[in-house]
Amino acid sequence: MTAYDRLTSRAARIATINEAAAVLNWDASAMMPPGGGAARGDQLAVLAGMAHGLAIAPEVADDLAQAEAAPPGDVWQQANLRLLRHGHLRATAVPGDLVEALTREASDSEAIWRDARQAADFRMVAPKLASLVALVREQAAALAPALQLSPYDALMDGFQRGVTTADVAPVFADYEAFLAHALPRAEELQAQRGPAIPLQGPFAEDRQEALCRRLSQQFGLEAEHSRLDRSTHPFCGGTPTDVRITTRYKIDDFTQSLMGVLHETGHALYERGLPLAYARQPVGEAAGSAAHESQSLLTEMQAARSDAFLTYLGPELLATFGGDPKAYTTANLAKVFRHVSRGFIRVDADEMTYPAHIILRFRLEQALISGDLAVADLPGAWNDGMQSLLGITPPDDAVGVLQDIHWYCGLFGYFPDYSLGAMASAQLMATARREVGDLDAALTRGDFAPLLGWLRRKVHSQGSLYGFNDLLRHATGKPLDPTDFEAHLTARYLV
Amino acid sequence: MTAYDRLTSRAARIATINEAAAVLNWDASAMMPPGGGAARGDQLAVLAGMAHGLAIAPEVADDLAQAEAAPPGDVWQQANLRLLRHGHLRATAVPGDLVEALTREASDSEAIWRDARQAADFRMVAPKLASLVALVREQAAALAPALQLSPYDALMDGFQRGVTTADVAPVFADYEAFLAHALPRAEELQAQRGPAIPLQGPFAEDRQEALCRRLSQQFGLEAEHSRLDRSTHPFCGGTPTDVRITTRYKIDDFTQSLMGVLHETGHALYERGLPLAYARQPVGEAAGSAAHESQSLLTEMQAARSDAFLTYLGPELLATFGGDPKAYTTANLAKVFRHVSRGFIRVDADEMTYPAHIILRFRLEQALISGDLAVADLPGAWNDGMQSLLGITPPDDAVGVLQDIHWYCGLFGYFPDYSLGAMASAQLMATARREVGDLDAALTRGDFAPLLGWLRRKVHSQGSLYGFNDLLRHATGKPLDPTDFEAHLTARYLV
Repeated sequence: MTAYDRLTSRAARIATINEAAAVLNWDASAMMPPGGGAARGDQLAVLAGMAHGLAIAPEVADDLAQAEAAPPGDVWQQANLRLLRHGHLRATAVPGDLVEALTREASDSEAIWRDARQAADFRMVAPKLASLVALVREQAAALAPALQLSPYDALMDGFQRGVTTADVAPVFADYEAFLAHALPRAEELQAQRGPAIPLQGPFAEDRQEALCRRLSQQFGLEAEHSRLDRSTHPFCGGTPTDVRITTRYKIDDFTQSLMGVLHETGHALYERGLPLAYARQPVGEAAGSAAHESQSLLTEMQAARSDAFLTYLGPELLATFGGDPKAYTTANLAKVFRHVSRGFIRVDADEMTYPAHIILRFRLEQALISGDLAVADLPGAWNDGMQSLLGITPPDDAVGVLQDIHWYCGLFGYFPDYSLGAMASAQLMATARREVGDLDAALTRGDFAPLLGWLRRKVHSQGSLYGFNDLLRHATGKPLDPTDFEAHLTARYLV
Repeated sequence: MTAYDRLTSRAARIATINEAAAVLNWDASAMMPPGGGAARGDQLAVLAGMAHGLAIAPEVADDLAQAEAAPPGDVWQQANLRLLRHGHLRATAVPGDLVEALTREASDSEAIWRDARQAADFRMVAPKLASLVALVREQAAALAPALQLSPYDALMDGFQRGVTTADVAPVFADYEAFLAHALPRAEELQAQRGPAIPLQGPFAEDRQEALCRRLSQQFGLEAEHSRLDRSTHPFCGGTPTDVRITTRYKIDDFTQSLMGVLHETGHALYERGLPLAYARQPVGEAAGSAAHESQSLLTEMQAARSDAFLTYLGPELLATFGGDPKAYTTANLAKVFRHVSRGFIRVDADEMTYPAHIILRFRLEQALISGDLAVADLPGAWNDGMQSLLGITPPDDAVGVLQDIHWYCGLFGYFPDYSLGAMASAQLMATARREVGDLDAALTRGDFAPLLGWLRRKVHSQGSLYGFNDLLRHATGKPLDPTDFEAHLTARYLV
């Protein structure tokens, strides 16, 4: 057995443990009775500990050095070896007692955050968040030299390799400038067109579920390899041959579950399309969080909310739920599914204002990690930022700085990926439109296959062969470029 | 940390891995899409390998020796230490390559068995079963000296400590003699009473499920700590704080799902009642397979099929499904739920003929392990045994020697536990009737609590402090004694 083979065999073992954990995590959200929570926490901790133990075992360093001295000939294997080295750098850079302290503090902080959000009082969680931020700064400081990145970029790298603040900051600044004129104009046009005819419920949950399942499968997600279930917070989990997506249903509104399921279907199709030959190897995984978001947002925002697909969807909705046919015309559904509004809540935001929520968080978390912003000053900075970006000020912390779980469980550097993904999705869609035949004609028939075929070739099958910008370069001929996203928004909202 | 503490800490880690595997096994049967099967096999194999690796690590032998040299003072800890030693003996007695060969051969054999059963042709699987039996004989031969048991008893010990062939053989011989006169007499009385008024369906599956869930909870299984789902083969899985039971529903017959769920509820209540102070330690586990069957059969056969509970159940069934009230009288339900018949299939057998199916398998598997019976001669021996015990001969192997999965996946020594459990359930019930107030009055109200309270004190809370016969001695004042079971059958079927 060569050193490289020993490394891949170990990686497969680690990935298999992580698959077990992924199913247990899905179960905890979608199936587990509440009384199983404590034991589940132990189970996941033991699995994580075993995976980590395998990753940092002393012989890995030797095998990496040996394999790098005589690298494999294949470009995929070379990339895999680089990713194995990268993973080893990340796993060994942070001392074990800091990892433990972070896990414990994040768990405490998350619990306090739930109460603080309930009470809409940031001060309840501020001290705990401050000590968590201090630990995250230690973590970032430990990772930075190992990865030769700035501390904040080292955190971003943990979710999406291949993007740095230097890539993101100008893109976001550009978007802020775009939004400053685009948003008022979009609101003006929207007002001129008048409100949508409301979709009248009730919409039986089992009918919503059946429709969501059918459309998800029609988009290409095979029943043989997937499940659709319910959970409080929708997500895509499971493993590549057994993808589990979830949603929640409201009897008086099917639009969120429907678009939510198609969003998660985009994530799931990415997992399903990863290169089987490199299953359970780093190079066979999805390319990162921003890449993942590009697939879910392409499916939801670019495809499912397009005029073409809404034209297909209208009669399907009418057949499923009945009601006033005038509410289910393409023009009316476009008003329902493409409504721009300045809101406080990120997860409820439309695609034009969503990046404003992200830009706010990106700037604040950079300042927290650099130490330029104290935790105590966070709510004020948040409210100032919202005012500056969207012209609104949250009435309380619950719909302000307390709305998202991320920071309170120690996740810093993830937020940018949502909007990088949105921008990438527009860039990918623009290229697909040029390279594939008439995509809109297919979507008007409810046919996602031509688009999926292109995505499989250009993105899914590439696994982690490339970092984010190189993946885009491979698929679209250029690195991330916000102009395609702005062109998409212009075409959709400003004409 | 003392040697004993190191051992219990390791045991907890192993138990936590096994919990993860238990949830993944439940998922594979109740939730997983078929395409996830291959990856799930890998996940379970990796978890099993890690648990085994922890169990046989070299330092365990040293810690056991140290702990035994200065044993803990508490009787529970002492029992735990004995069980840790026992587990270590079992885990280390069988060479790793034999374990691997067994796993592989069992997996192959099971696959071939499915086809052979489909084709009703034992010859298809005979060669593979012969090589599997040869490996199981090697396994038994390796275990026997380590445990100071005969080879077959060493296999039985893997499922239920504390019973040997010397205990079981006379009990089964006694039952065979009882059955020879009891069965014809029961059939005669049954014929005199005439057939039951049929229960007329259809019985909507969601109503069956709602009723099963409600009764299961009424018997004491908390929604907070359990789930009820569907699977092809009903079972009780999960973990003690998160018990998962399954059943299957047939639209034209609710009796199997209802009694099946109450059976699995008996297993689940045992898991729920185990001593929390010894969670994830051997002494905190259920006492074995026969002990487990005693709890499911006590719940189903002793309690749920009693006149008292059927008197409660009739109006509930009528309210749930509607239909002819005359079909739902206690007398008619007794005919439905307590029908004796000589059948070929073990899992469909009534409580009187069931032990005949077990006695047959017990004798045949003893002969296979001792080498007195060749695999090629198994179908003939099976059919002769059925003729001798029940006076019927299977028309083909599918309803004969091929009906059960056990042998074909390498499980030998488990079958006796089903009937030891049945006998123990009658013995426990007889004692509970003496020690608790009017159990029948409670069951007539659908109230399982007095019986559950007694079981918790006498059985569940005892974990694995005792072996099978000592557990019975503790709870009933005597080791296994088939006369209580025979008295139960006499009272129910022969008067």
